[in-house]
Amino acid sequence: MPVNPKADIEVTGFNWVPEGPRGLVKDLRVRWALEEAGLDYRFRGIGLERPANYRQDQPFEQVPCFTDGKVRIFESGAIVQYVAEQSEALLPADPQQRYRAIQWSYAALSSIEPFVQFRALLNNFWADLDWAPAAKPTFDHYAKLRLQQLSDRLGDKDWLEGDRFTIGDLMMVSVLRIADRGQLLGETPDLTAYVKRGEARPAFQRALNDQLATYREHEPQGEAA
Amino acid sequence: MPVNPKADIEVTGFNWVPEGPRGLVKDLRVRWALEEAGLDYRFRGIGLERPANYRQDQPFEQVPCFTDGKVRIFESGAIVQYVAEQSEALLPADPQQRYRAIQWSYAALSSIEPFVQFRALLNNFWADLDWAPAAKPTFDHYAKLRLQQLSDRLGDKDWLEGDRFTIGDLMMVSVLRIADRGQLLGETPDLTAYVKRGEARPAFQRALNDQLATYREHEPQGEAA
Repeated sequence: MPVNPKADIEVTGFNWVPEGPRGLVKDLRVRWALEEAGLDYRFRGIGLERPANYRQDQPFEQVPCFTDGKVRIFESGAIVQYVAEQSEALLPADPQQRYRAIQWSYAALSSIEPFVQFRALLNNFWADLDWAPAAKPTFDHYAKLRLQQLSDRLGDKDWLEGDRFTIGDLMMVSVLRIADRGQLLGETPDLTAYVKRGEARPAFQRALNDQLATYREHEPQGEAA
Repeated sequence: MPVNPKADIEVTGFNWVPEGPRGLVKDLRVRWALEEAGLDYRFRGIGLERPANYRQDQPFEQVPCFTDGKVRIFESGAIVQYVAEQSEALLPADPQQRYRAIQWSYAALSSIEPFVQFRALLNNFWADLDWAPAAKPTFDHYAKLRLQQLSDRLGDKDWLEGDRFTIGDLMMVSVLRIADRGQLLGETPDLTAYVKRGEARPAFQRALNDQLATYREHEPQGEAA
């Protein structure tokens, strides 16, 4: 288990979140990448009430942040790419394959996640706003269009570029898990199967279990397991 | 002028768009990066009615796409990063500085652009939808919150990490130009000044002029200059 209090690598995430976002908070992406790369890390848990000066670490007050003594960065996409550069497991050396992986990482965050994320906001945080129910069909339409296009490109391949799992798949599966929870994958069962392939990886399972364990340890009112 | 029909690098964009999105279409980001890096490229213009099989090049039917005979990729973030790896002008060699630049590229596309882009959709493509006027304050709120946080981080620096312009600035200025056109920068005049510093770079000017020249050459009904 790479969670190791003495590791050089430190990942910052929340030490507790409510049930709704559990398993979707973005330090999971970094934990997953570290597990795939076989790198130890220590976890720095912060409260939802961010610590004083947290904006020094993350100007948007989000998680995750990352340091390893050499770099100090935020943005899950950049962190996962940095971790992947330490290990060919996630980022092939061949220029075409390397940049296809990076391409899919950007595609996950820039071409898919915004549609899926705003749809999730409409279903959750924004659900009580007057305009939200009327807006949902528009967001559904665009989210599902992008998901269908992605499904068409995935075709019958296991991973986006064929046989080999890369950071592109790690980021795309992570984003599609938000879509799955928002029940947006009903028309693209191949994407559901793709998510399940990602989730079945031992590295993902370890990362998820460690994230959920952190939340259980910090359960309020002595409800911890 | 790096637009050169015999260049190995090929950038795909639209050969014509209406007035509204001119200067914001995302091949501009790649043209700009190539100008900063001093690399020649040829331009492949496609129609808004995409060519048959265009999804082979870009599964979401967007622009830009990129090839140089070695890689064939899409997603402006990945392309700009690939271009930057050919030239230290845009991506420092030092690991911390390198990954800070990549961090800001991801931040531009993942933490800022979605808020700004959906706000632009509400003002333009979605303006006639019943729910759009009621939704605008919510999108305004979140867009301006992120912009204020970015402004706080920029402080009195010229560029996001100090004196040196990187792909992080290239992508952030590109994204803020959408916000500026949507009149979202009124409360953050330092971001307006940051955008102007980016736009004042000779490489940006050449890239913008070449993009606009392409549109003029393909103006319908013989209106070309």
